[in-house]
Amino acid sequence: VSGGNASSAESYTGTERILAFSDGVFAIAITLLVLDLVPPRVEHGVVDKLLEAWPNYLSYALSFFIIGILWASHHQMFTQIKRSNHVFLLINIVFLMWVAALPFPTALLAEGLSHYDAVGRQAVVAIYTGMFLVGALLFNLEWWYAIYRGRLLGEGADPEAVKRTTRSYYIGPVAYLADLALSFVSIEASLVLFFLLALFYAVVPIPVVYRTIAGRTGIRKNRIIKD
Amino acid sequence: VSGGNASSAESYTGTERILAFSDGVFAIAITLLVLDLVPPRVEHGVVDKLLEAWPNYLSYALSFFIIGILWASHHQMFTQIKRSNHVFLLINIVFLMWVAALPFPTALLAEGLSHYDAVGRQAVVAIYTGMFLVGALLFNLEWWYAIYRGRLLGEGADPEAVKRTTRSYYIGPVAYLADLALSFVSIEASLVLFFLLALFYAVVPIPVVYRTIAGRTGIRKNRIIKD
Amino acid sequence: VSGGNASSAESYTGTERILAFSDGVFAIAITLLVLDLVPPRVEHGVVDKLLEAWPNYLSYALSFFIIGILWASHHQMFTQIKRSNHVFLLINIVFLMWVAALPFPTALLAEGLSHYDAVGRQAVVAIYTGMFLVGALLFNLEWWYAIYRGRLLGEGADPEAVKRTTRSYYIGPVAYLADLALSFVSIEASLVLFFLLALFYAVVPIPVVYRTIAGRTGIRKNRIIKD
Amino acid sequence: VSGGNASSAESYTGTERILAFSDGVFAIAITLLVLDLVPPRVEHGVVDKLLEAWPNYLSYALSFFIIGILWASHHQMFTQIKRSNHVFLLINIVFLMWVAALPFPTALLAEGLSHYDAVGRQAVVAIYTGMFLVGALLFNLEWWYAIYRGRLLGEGADPEAVKRTTRSYYIGPVAYLADLALSFVSIEASLVLFFLLALFYAVVPIPVVYRTIAGRTGIRKNRIIKD
Repeated sequence: VSGGNASSAESYTGTERILAFSDGVFAIAITLLVLDLVPPRVEHGVVDKLLEAWPNYLSYALSFFIIGILWASHHQMFTQIKRSNHVFLLINIVFLMWVAALPFPTALLAEGLSHYDAVGRQAVVAIYTGMFLVGALLFNLEWWYAIYRGRLLGEGADPEAVKRTTRSYYIGPVAYLADLALSFVSIEASLVLFFLLALFYAVVPIPVVYRTIAGRTGIRKNRIIKD
Repeated sequence: VSGGNASSAESYTGTERILAFSDGVFAIAITLLVLDLVPPRVEHGVVDKLLEAWPNYLSYALSFFIIGILWASHHQMFTQIKRSNHVFLLINIVFLMWVAALPFPTALLAEGLSHYDAVGRQAVVAIYTGMFLVGALLFNLEWWYAIYRGRLLGEGADPEAVKRTTRSYYIGPVAYLADLALSFVSIEASLVLFFLLALFYAVVPIPVVYRTIAGRTGIRKNRIIKD
Repeated sequence: VSGGNASSAESYTGTERILAFSDGVFAIAITLLVLDLVPPRVEHGVVDKLLEAWPNYLSYALSFFIIGILWASHHQMFTQIKRSNHVFLLINIVFLMWVAALPFPTALLAEGLSHYDAVGRQAVVAIYTGMFLVGALLFNLEWWYAIYRGRLLGEGADPEAVKRTTRSYYIGPVAYLADLALSFVSIEASLVLFFLLALFYAVVPIPVVYRTIAGRTGIRKNRIIKD
Repeated sequence: VSGGNASSAESYTGTERILAFSDGVFAIAITLLVLDLVPPRVEHGVVDKLLEAWPNYLSYALSFFIIGILWASHHQMFTQIKRSNHVFLLINIVFLMWVAALPFPTALLAEGLSHYDAVGRQAVVAIYTGMFLVGALLFNLEWWYAIYRGRLLGEGADPEAVKRTTRSYYIGPVAYLADLALSFVSIEASLVLFFLLALFYAVVPIPVVYRTIAGRTGIRKNRIIKD
């Protein structure tokens, strides 16, 4: 009966435009990556030049794949989030700001590993892994805001599935924090762990991972209740 | 029964494609901002170079956030506008022309504050704030055209909510006109006011702002009628 | 009962994805225009430099507006076209190839008017107007293919409205052919006519134009039948 | 009744966002091609310069058309695929990685044919045709994954139509493998075959092709059963 209620009714909207806008930003950020691949400007020894540039192709493929996986994770998050409000919009904008900025630390890493001195190389690896720590925290923040007291969930949301997803999302910040710390010990080890994490997120959708881990460690309660 | 009616029936259409097209322009304009961030081309002292470039990161974050907020405001406007016609399309195209042009005054401001003389610095701040004055006027024009005699509103539009939104939109042109005037007195003060305005639009969705201000100054009629 | 029928049933699909893809191409082509606006790299006399660059701002605004109008016309065409097949997809791809190429003749015109000799200036104006002649022909081709025997029209399509639209579309090729011819006489006159045509398409949606012209010349049959 | 079932229900989703994201990547990749067309920076002899640059226009038109046809083929594939899961998302991301990378081998081919020595020219043609072999394999992989035991097909999918499509898709890998082999014999012949293949895919939608070939060689069973 209060103005506040009228305001809530107004400010909770669907997620269609957020998804359309987010898909656009992901699609553009991912497609701009090709601008870093340019043909060698030589006449002779082209094949050698092309073979030497293998880190560039690897960087393109890896960055494309990582942004693609992020898009898929965002996609998956919105199978449970069905409404939106102004604060959620803002959090999503900050998350997209992070997505759209990814080409910069990626280019910095490529430049750094080829041309920077030891201090610079350590710095770019720390920046790169730190960037993903920030992204994992933003991703969790977006999710936490949406599920707090079921704020933005769909009507038929399963509380156990939501809890499971929440716990599975903890993996990201913990893993990237470890990777950032590792970068101060060995940049090679840090990069290997980073690649393994990308592979992990690619191969296994998060809820399945959690369920498998939970199953092995005996925390099967959720599944049983669910069944 | 007139040809005019037939014509109206034809020319009033839904807003889906306007929104799809606008979302596309917003998404691209916002994602192109990252092209201004490039790794330093040095071998040593990389960390210092990266720290020195902090205005670039701030500019990226601020510009991204401002375009994001604009998108959210456009989003909010279309929760009440449900139809479209040719003139409205044209006004929206001019508004999008303004959105897509934003990277230019932003780059001009960054370049100007770093490298221009006093006259040039004053000019770029005036251009930057003047640009937002124009944008606020275009935003109001789009809204005024849509609500004139309820032209493009949805069937169940609440006249009081529309009036409230209209009045809340007045804040923009007034604030940016003041900021433009201020730029002739002190460019530092003008930039601080600009940042505060961006923060204001980010933190508080416009109708809520108006309602709060209205409540404090005793103009509560609309809310009471609404309730 | 024939394989041919089964094939038709398969190959006629909706227009949603064509519209999504076309909107995307229009949105990107229009947003890339800002990449031509760059801040002057000087320290002093910035204001003069900015004022001197007025043709660049005019070119940005005009190109943006023209692509925007083209998008609106494409939008309008699809209020009557409701189905699609493979050939129609191909025609639309060729039309989009033309849309996405527009930044090139636009940049060529800007470069040519500033720096080319008399032969070069005449050439770029002829290329620019000739480009729009090609575009108008492609636009008509897309429409003709769609309406031939009502191939891709919606179920409730009004034959008189379709005929009216068809005739109104004739204006484009005729006008741009005249403009191309005029470019060989006087490039100034050709450019003025070009601007007038852009204004014409902006201000007046095509069916209304035709109806007004038809009304004045006494060809009122269609409207009467319609009423 | 098992957690596994619940998991399946969760992980199979619609194809709307995959299509939106894919359309975005296609639209951006195709629109970025224009960035390779730049006005000649000369004062005199502009017309000659423009005429000399015909390979660039041909390359633009051909690349645009090929990406457009790919989009149409992807479009057609999704008239039968109606559901999605995590693995399918990943395959589609890898396919989009290939689509978004196309500007690179295209630029490499253009650069190579103009400026590289004989070894370099042979290499770029082999890379270009090899790239399309990879694409054709990825396209087939996406389809095979979707149709395996009807995994991601719509409810009313016609098994014969699916088989027909499957067989028609075999043409791609075989043809591009032949074209890659041919590039080691004669790069001219390889390029001519490549253009013919592009034309072939443009003019004839695949199911029709297969049916015609099948009809001529007497394998009419599917059509007869279908009728």
